[in-house]
Amino acid sequence: MATEGQVITCKGTVLYFTFTAVAWEANKPLVIEDVQVAPPQAGEVRVKILFTALCHTDAYTWSGKDPEGLFPCILGHEAAGIVESVGEGVTEVQPGDHVIPCYQAECRECKFCKSGKTNLCGKVRAATGVGVMMSDRKSRFSINGKPIYHFMGTSTFSQYTVVHDVSVAKISPQAPLDKVCLLGCGVPTGLGAVWNTAKVEAGSIVAVFGLGTVGLAVAEGAKAAGASRIIGIDIDSKKFDVAKNFGVTEFVNPKEYDKPIQQVIVDLTDGGVDYSFECIGNVSVMRAALECCHKGWGTSVIVGVAASGQEISTRPFQLVTGRVWKGTAFGGFKSRSQVPWLVDKYMNKEIKVDEYITHSLTLAEINEAFDLMHEGGCLRCVLSLHA
Amino acid sequence: MATEGQVITCKGTVLYFTFTAVAWEANKPLVIEDVQVAPPQAGEVRVKILFTALCHTDAYTWSGKDPEGLFPCILGHEAAGIVESVGEGVTEVQPGDHVIPCYQAECRECKFCKSGKTNLCGKVRAATGVGVMMSDRKSRFSINGKPIYHFMGTSTFSQYTVVHDVSVAKISPQAPLDKVCLLGCGVPTGLGAVWNTAKVEAGSIVAVFGLGTVGLAVAEGAKAAGASRIIGIDIDSKKFDVAKNFGVTEFVNPKEYDKPIQQVIVDLTDGGVDYSFECIGNVSVMRAALECCHKGWGTSVIVGVAASGQEISTRPFQLVTGRVWKGTAFGGFKSRSQVPWLVDKYMNKEIKVDEYITHSLTLAEINEAFDLMHEGGCLRCVLSLHA
Ligand SMILES: NC(=O)c1ccc[n+]([C@@H]2O[C@H](COP(=O)([O-])OP(=O)(O)OC[C@H]3O[C@@H](n4cnc5c(N)ncnc54)[C@H](O)[C@@H]3O)[C@@H](O)[C@H]2O)c1
Ligand SMILES: NC(=O)c1ccc[n+]([C@@H]2O[C@H](COP(=O)([O-])OP(=O)(O)OC[C@H]3O[C@@H](n4cnc5c(N)ncnc54)[C@H](O)[C@@H]3O)[C@@H](O)[C@H]2O)c1
Ligand SMILES: [Zn+2]
Ligand SMILES: [Zn+2]
Ligand SMILES: [Zn+2]
Ligand SMILES: [Zn+2]
Repeated sequence: MATEGQVITCKGTVLYFTFTAVAWEANKPLVIEDVQVAPPQAGEVRVKILFTALCHTDAYTWSGKDPEGLFPCILGHEAAGIVESVGEGVTEVQPGDHVIPCYQAECRECKFCKSGKTNLCGKVRAATGVGVMMSDRKSRFSINGKPIYHFMGTSTFSQYTVVHDVSVAKISPQAPLDKVCLLGCGVPTGLGAVWNTAKVEAGSIVAVFGLGTVGLAVAEGAKAAGASRIIGIDIDSKKFDVAKNFGVTEFVNPKEYDKPIQQVIVDLTDGGVDYSFECIGNVSVMRAALECCHKGWGTSVIVGVAASGQEISTRPFQLVTGRVWKGTAFGGFKSRSQVPWLVDKYMNKEIKVDEYITHSLTLAEINEAFDLMHEGGCLRCVLSLHA
Repeated sequence: MATEGQVITCKGTVLYFTFTAVAWEANKPLVIEDVQVAPPQAGEVRVKILFTALCHTDAYTWSGKDPEGLFPCILGHEAAGIVESVGEGVTEVQPGDHVIPCYQAECRECKFCKSGKTNLCGKVRAATGVGVMMSDRKSRFSINGKPIYHFMGTSTFSQYTVVHDVSVAKISPQAPLDKVCLLGCGVPTGLGAVWNTAKVEAGSIVAVFGLGTVGLAVAEGAKAAGASRIIGIDIDSKKFDVAKNFGVTEFVNPKEYDKPIQQVIVDLTDGGVDYSFECIGNVSVMRAALECCHKGWGTSVIVGVAASGQEISTRPFQLVTGRVWKGTAFGGFKSRSQVPWLVDKYMNKEIKVDEYITHSLTLAEINEAFDLMHEGGCLRCVLSLHA
């Protein structure tokens, strides 16, 4: 491509808020800027991002509540695009390839990747955790020479981004990028929580706490696994109608009961559910999700991300009597290996994606998109970056 | 037998302390009494107890700290004996059979037994939980007509006891009862925590918190499973010498470090252990045991029983990044099916039992035996009931 080896100046949305900043730009915290994106170094890939969705981790860092948030930065991690150029030694993708950036890397050679027991690759974490690239511990983003931090190793709220080669999944060129961008985070997280982490079997009774994109994907995964009952729990009853399309068979709004929600579920299920999933990020609900599990075997999976410093608790007797407490990151999927497989499943109409997209906007409207996240009617809002 | 169908009067040790009692018999809380043991009713078995060991659940109830403790009662749950007579409909054992009473019943027909996922049979729990027998919700023990509560469905601190037929395992008549009584609780709990609950694989790194009988049995089970390192953690360094014989390869005394013990273990193991076991009953140690597990896959099993009302806690991130929190009761062993198998393993010298027995006394010396439990040198003290 003509841009290969050149610094690209493109539109990116930069989050300037920092903990030391005096001025919080209350109405427009993300600012559209002309950002310089340096060429990819060895082992790096520069990607033209075509579509990105917003997810809660973006909103959490945006809120300033994450003590590890670094500013100024470019957020975004649920996206799809096309490789613009690659750095030295990059063999698995080439310019023109359609890709999904992966905040969970997969190097296939670190202790984690080789274990066969987890998708949590450790290869580039030391850099992505502090907003830079591995090779020189520097950012590829700048504005007039001032560096702007990366975010989650992806930074997809920019027309171009640079990612590590272990953090990019090559997908079918036939897949519509405005849809499959969702396979970068929320939907795989829910499906994988069921298929990889809990390994729900046919006939199981499942409880899903929180019916946003992640919870609905859990329901979809549970339905595909043959669950006999899928109980959806949400404090927003408006979620119940749409949730039916994702496989939820029964609805419970905790606000309509005086009893603790775990007791409500135990009573509904003759002793508790076989599997429960917390898809909210609320530590009290995490406890309820564990305690509504059946004695002897019930397994609860934490999917939601709680605010920093918060703790879960329960009586150890809950575990001694056979309940199991787990969690999942990106649904346990190995990103580079399995995101392409998920894309194919979508192309074969075996998993839903379109149904999670409730809004489509442009990069310039990103702040409205953040506002939408707080509205009950919004599941995923997809932004077009080059419209 | 000549006693069949008759009330047997025998020696039993009765715990009279109650929460409302004014007088706590400080030095001799267990009183040797002549106890009347009624004949077994339908589905019940009267067992002549020959040997019993003491375990921590006895001591906990004895301490008065268990809010569910019922008094007066006959404690004891780790024992072996011979069937004296059986009630109507009992088919699987007959007078003369050598047996081990099982506080975890196994009925093979309830929801729990049929699940194939747990050993926590629910058949007689409603009765054993409140110190009586299922058929008439009454006790078979009395003293001059005043009922004395059963304990854990076993009450082995008595020369004769009555148990449900689903709570008794028939074992090889060749097995020495003064040894295999230990297979009624602590040793199977430790072995099973490794084999059934954690399913430790060859090459694993294991941490064992607490090197009493249960922790040593964990070490023994881990060694048999082929663990590459077995790290024993105890605040009593005297435990380390004997622990070597059970497979512990490294020792850590938390008192010798300024760092939190989870950090010590993580540092020793390049990121954490594959499996950890809490064999103490201390909720802070339970947290440490979870947090010293390796990110991505480390599994922690709670074996120790914490005091009533105490809670475990951690940050949910510990689970979201792949650690798993479990617990075990009786090591996940199905009692009637698997205790006989454990007895055979002992007879074939595949598991240790003798090595856990540090003291032997008579029923009359039971209060000294309780005192011994607080001494570092005591693992199990076996009482002879008819000596
Ligand atoms: N573990 C991972 O890898 C991973 C990946 C993606 C997202 N997440 C997390 O998953 C969570 C869910 O994401 P999402 O996009 O579906 O969010 P969302 O906000 O769209 O959905 C959350 C739902 O929970 C409901 N809710 C809120 N409080 C509740 C309560 N007390 N009881 C019952 N329902 C309640 C809301 O009404 C909403 O419908 C977030 O915490 C997100 O950070 C985790
Ligand atoms: N889950 C079950 O089914 C089951 C069955 C039997 C026993 N248990 C429980 O297992 C636990 C252990 O039983 P046991 O008979 O081996 O007990 P024990 O008292 O013989 O052994 C406990 C060991 O822990 C050590 N210890 C105490 N505090 C410690 C600390 N803070 N850090 C490190 N080590 C510490 C002690 O020095 C001792 O060596 C008890 O809580 C018992 O109730 C559970
Ligand atoms: Zn996300
Ligand atoms: Zn890796
Ligand atoms: Zn015991
Ligand atoms: Zn049963």
